[in-house]
Amino acid sequence: MSQIGIPKGTRDFLPEQMCRRNYIFDTVREVFHQFGFVEIQTPSMENLSTLMGKYGEEGDRLLFKILNSGNFLEKADLEEPNLNRLAASLCEKGLRYDLTVPFARFVVQHRQDLTMPFKRFQIQPVWRADRPQKGRYREFYQCDADIIGSNSLLNEADLLQMADEVFHRLKIRVQIKVNNRKLLAGIAEYMGCPDRLTEVTVAIDKLDKIGMENVCKEMEERGIAREAIQKALPLFAQQGDVWSQLSEMERLLSGSEVAKKGIVEMRELFGYLEMLSLHNETVMDLTLARGLNYYTGTIMEIKAKDVAMGSISGGGRYDDLTGIFGLKNMSGVGISFGADRIYDVLSESGLFPESDNSSTQVLLVNFGEKELVCTLPLAQRLRQSGFRVEIYPDEVKIGRQFAYADARHIPYVVIVGESEMAEGRFQLKNMSDGSQTCLTEEEIITKLNDLK
Amino acid sequence: MSQIGIPKGTRDFLPEQMCRRNYIFDTVREVFHQFGFVEIQTPSMENLSTLMGKYGEEGDRLLFKILNSGNFLEKADLEEPNLNRLAASLCEKGLRYDLTVPFARFVVQHRQDLTMPFKRFQIQPVWRADRPQKGRYREFYQCDADIIGSNSLLNEADLLQMADEVFHRLKIRVQIKVNNRKLLAGIAEYMGCPDRLTEVTVAIDKLDKIGMENVCKEMEERGIAREAIQKALPLFAQQGDVWSQLSEMERLLSGSEVAKKGIVEMRELFGYLEMLSLHNETVMDLTLARGLNYYTGTIMEIKAKDVAMGSISGGGRYDDLTGIFGLKNMSGVGISFGADRIYDVLSESGLFPESDNSSTQVLLVNFGEKELVCTLPLAQRLRQSGFRVEIYPDEVKIGRQFAYADARHIPYVVIVGESEMAEGRFQLKNMSDGSQTCLTEEEIITKLNDLK
Repeated sequence: MSQIGIPKGTRDFLPEQMCRRNYIFDTVREVFHQFGFVEIQTPSMENLSTLMGKYGEEGDRLLFKILNSGNFLEKADLEEPNLNRLAASLCEKGLRYDLTVPFARFVVQHRQDLTMPFKRFQIQPVWRADRPQKGRYREFYQCDADIIGSNSLLNEADLLQMADEVFHRLKIRVQIKVNNRKLLAGIAEYMGCPDRLTEVTVAIDKLDKIGMENVCKEMEERGIAREAIQKALPLFAQQGDVWSQLSEMERLLSGSEVAKKGIVEMRELFGYLEMLSLHNETVMDLTLARGLNYYTGTIMEIKAKDVAMGSISGGGRYDDLTGIFGLKNMSGVGISFGADRIYDVLSESGLFPESDNSSTQVLLVNFGEKELVCTLPLAQRLRQSGFRVEIYPDEVKIGRQFAYADARHIPYVVIVGESEMAEGRFQLKNMSDGSQTCLTEEEIITKLNDLK
Repeated sequence: MSQIGIPKGTRDFLPEQMCRRNYIFDTVREVFHQFGFVEIQTPSMENLSTLMGKYGEEGDRLLFKILNSGNFLEKADLEEPNLNRLAASLCEKGLRYDLTVPFARFVVQHRQDLTMPFKRFQIQPVWRADRPQKGRYREFYQCDADIIGSNSLLNEADLLQMADEVFHRLKIRVQIKVNNRKLLAGIAEYMGCPDRLTEVTVAIDKLDKIGMENVCKEMEERGIAREAIQKALPLFAQQGDVWSQLSEMERLLSGSEVAKKGIVEMRELFGYLEMLSLHNETVMDLTLARGLNYYTGTIMEIKAKDVAMGSISGGGRYDDLTGIFGLKNMSGVGISFGADRIYDVLSESGLFPESDNSSTQVLLVNFGEKELVCTLPLAQRLRQSGFRVEIYPDEVKIGRQFAYADARHIPYVVIVGESEMAEGRFQLKNMSDGSQTCLTEEEIITKLNDLK
């Protein structure tokens, strides 16, 4: 039995974990539904031609590739032991790396059948051949919601409301940060290095981790002039509410067309947010950059307030995601919830609900065949009344059956013995306080209904 | 765009399909919960050492294998273009082929953490590199429920009740067939060829497809003597209820110990079923064999009555499933629901429910920024009252917004125009009959509540 195990970076989920994971998925799904998002699923495997080149060089390396079936190798393929070249002829399929690229492929492929704007959500696992470490797995679930085919910033407002609502329901206090790539582009222009947007954002992104001093150092190392950095510093040091910050930026970045657009968008979005009463604080954060290159407008990120953890949700607008598959001018905006990190936050804060709505409520004790004549139909009727009911399958000592109920956290045990059968009454034992009452079937149902 | 596509044998699920698939999964899951089964999940990929050799030679061939990451090939691996040998050094992981072998691995690996008897269910996709054809896919979902660690036939009774309940809820009329491998073994003994059980069962299994004459022919071809077959024929031609059939078998198979055991088991199980009132007919069918070699006791199979389709559910008892992973004497019994075939039956019979409980109930028309001051908070409050609500994101002609509501089957549209804002009332348009009423927010909520 020593060799039993699972591939590194993957996980089994035991019943209690599943129950908690489902609590997260169900909450997210319910909120998605409330905002009109519809579910789709895509295959676990995609053609490598769909996946390759979409996630950068590192992404290509981290794709799990699936060996073709059949024996079709040619001598020529084997002249040189180079896995990359060989892999190309060995594999034409790979496992889904995220939900975004398959979604883009899906939209292009099924565009005739979709009602635009199309609001879809997708909760499925993805796979990355990354080095496993604490909190990083090779198989993990993503929960994505995207709207495609609409430029309206109301979509951004919807996504932010959804995030606010999800975390409110999960009782996680969060801070919601919003920025706009167009503002960052404007700042890069203002600094005199519009072509260095990526370097600027990569450095800025680290501000809350390494401090302003080190951010400047990093920019210098990346070849951005000290004067340029000095010029931009006041922007990142701004205080005050979003409106005064945007006015200040309007003044400073008046020479940048893209910054102007960004300011208009931020004003519109924060205008919408002001019309709503959200549970959590939403702030503009100019240092928020988010790594993904395909974002072109609003970007957003959510962190837990009471637990130190990376972002637990994030997203943004991309103007041309389906372009890679030949469908131009299809703007989209999306948000993704990180189920594993949310799990860890709930776990660390003790926020998982005590009870769950899927576990057994009543165990019927098994005294053997004679009593089963009564127990089996009783179980059936209790289920018909909507309860979750088990009969202990084996005729073993009652102590073992109680131990089973305890281990499974079953709150009530019903004892159907000879005397109970004669009387048409049953012993209902409350497992939490050990109390026992003799009740008719109807009385049991009434009692259990109180449990609901 | 011409190259866009997905690997053959895989599928995208569009919103309407997802909704229907979820209807099946939710029904099955709810019934599983009512009988005390708890959910687990295992990784999509298992070590090949876990999977290989568990499904026969063909199964090994049909496993999807995952290419190892990194460049580790040796010249020596490449001397001969033989994929099988190469694959062994290229791959150490494979995709799950079914839910049973991973479950056995799971039980052995986590046995310290499981409460026995352990009743688990699992609803996850599996992958097989089979030739795709109508109704056969390379990625498909299985819905399995198993009880492990209990010999009691009450477990069989539970599984049969569950199947009965699932199909009752789905409104599919079914016939439930039950047999016992021990009876088949007894018959093989009675025929004088106890070592030919597999051949006998394989031939018998085809009885309802090819008829008795051809079954006999097939057995002869497989080297079973004509006299042996003649001897067994009356058993398969039996009429009457399960009790009289079992008595007749008891008489004929009195020389077989294993048959005796099988008869005792069948009497006990049908005794339990008699205590219950099931919605569907449950019959003993001696010709039911089911292919899988690991079954050792009860076997069961369910077919739709009104649609010609293979079995839509099936299962049985296996005495030594975890033995392959070194844990002996762990008897189990399980049932599996075929989501794809159930989907087809529901589809052909028009049995999918019209409405679903996840789609948008109200669309709020978008007239532009001024009205949004009123529309945005209204949408928020309607959601707080539990409704599924969308605001049309773009300010386009009202006709296009209505067309969107129609295409999405949204039953109500709320119109918030200038005059409505002034009055604090809104137009509620019923999309099915086109009627329109001017209502306060409270009246809208009352009206929508009737919809629930």
